[in-house]
Amino acid sequence: MIRQTALPQSLSRLINELSKLPSVGEKSATRLAYFILRRGMGDAQRLASAIVEAAEKIGLCRRCFGFAEQELCPICQDISRAPSLICVVEKPADVIALERSGGFNGVYHVLHGLWSPLRGVQPDEIKIAELVRRVADGEDGGMESRVEEIIIATGATVEGDATALYIADTVSPYRVKVTRLAQGMSKGSDLEYTDEVTLNQALSGRRNIG
Amino acid sequence: MIRQTALPQSLSRLINELSKLPSVGEKSATRLAYFILRRGMGDAQRLASAIVEAAEKIGLCRRCFGFAEQELCPICQDISRAPSLICVVEKPADVIALERSGGFNGVYHVLHGLWSPLRGVQPDEIKIAELVRRVADGEDGGMESRVEEIIIATGATVEGDATALYIADTVSPYRVKVTRLAQGMSKGSDLEYTDEVTLNQALSGRRNIG
Repeated sequence: MIRQTALPQSLSRLINELSKLPSVGEKSATRLAYFILRRGMGDAQRLASAIVEAAEKIGLCRRCFGFAEQELCPICQDISRAPSLICVVEKPADVIALERSGGFNGVYHVLHGLWSPLRGVQPDEIKIAELVRRVADGEDGGMESRVEEIIIATGATVEGDATALYIADTVSPYRVKVTRLAQGMSKGSDLEYTDEVTLNQALSGRRNIG
Repeated sequence: MIRQTALPQSLSRLINELSKLPSVGEKSATRLAYFILRRGMGDAQRLASAIVEAAEKIGLCRRCFGFAEQELCPICQDISRAPSLICVVEKPADVIALERSGGFNGVYHVLHGLWSPLRGVQPDEIKIAELVRRVADGEDGGMESRVEEIIIATGATVEGDATALYIADTVSPYRVKVTRLAQGMSKGSDLEYTDEVTLNQALSGRRNIG
């Protein structure tokens, strides 16, 4: 630790605030602070206003619970996306990961958590009821279009699997197909270094290629 | 890359600003942005105002050229520090590194660069003349106290060594001792994995222990 008196107060405060960010320790925070000071006032203002503006403007999409500035997020507003195909994810950051893959043209539903008895998170604490309502509204022939498929893209963990099964069970009264992302070997991974569980899943999920 | 339209505008802008920070790529910037949004408005405001306040208030110390909010930095103002002992460093961040070590009770002089013919940086572009003036002012018996020793703590690189020799030469007309940080093995390092140059320096700098 540095003696409190060795640094100008506003610099200590900046280092302190930056070190609250995830995976930013005191040393990285110091480096970031020096970088910010070196670039000068214009860039500092731009960064600060981007932070405040985003925190001010961004809420949750009324339909999918992803991040949105208006009532609906840009994806739910985009008429080129198929509303009959809903991809269910744990958190808003997962939407970005899937968008980055470029392989999905449906819409999303963000659960904001996973069913986790161990951590005391019950299914009614995450946005499952809201997902069922989207399915039900579509069946009613109301405003919403019919949901044909729900792709459950929760992580390949115990909680991710449990949540997927719970959702599949909950929507079973409706005429909707429920699928789960394939589990198997990651692209570029070596058989020798792949763990047994993954190998077993890759085996049982094997696909015909010729 | 994510389709521009998939994210709310203020979120894209925040991710973009954050990814300008050193060693923050697009993925880390996304993670930081989500973290900032999750924590909510209060914390976002605190971070933003710390950034603006630091950029606004912090300039360079009139005496040592370290970061300061007032004319003099907290270290130059601190009467418990020995003004006769000046540690010369390349950049403000080096001051923090030395303060963290807790082993120094003198004052600093920040060069804001190193003499580097290869990168076209000449000695008159860094704060060497200002260092000589501090030494000369002390000799005059004026306001400043006499400088007894200059510890040159530039990095153990070609530029760091060249700058050290240049400074030693420049202050040679004055009655001031010039020293350089010891170069040798880092604490915890293994002989087997230490490079030859370091080993040679560790050998030539060996000290009597009994």
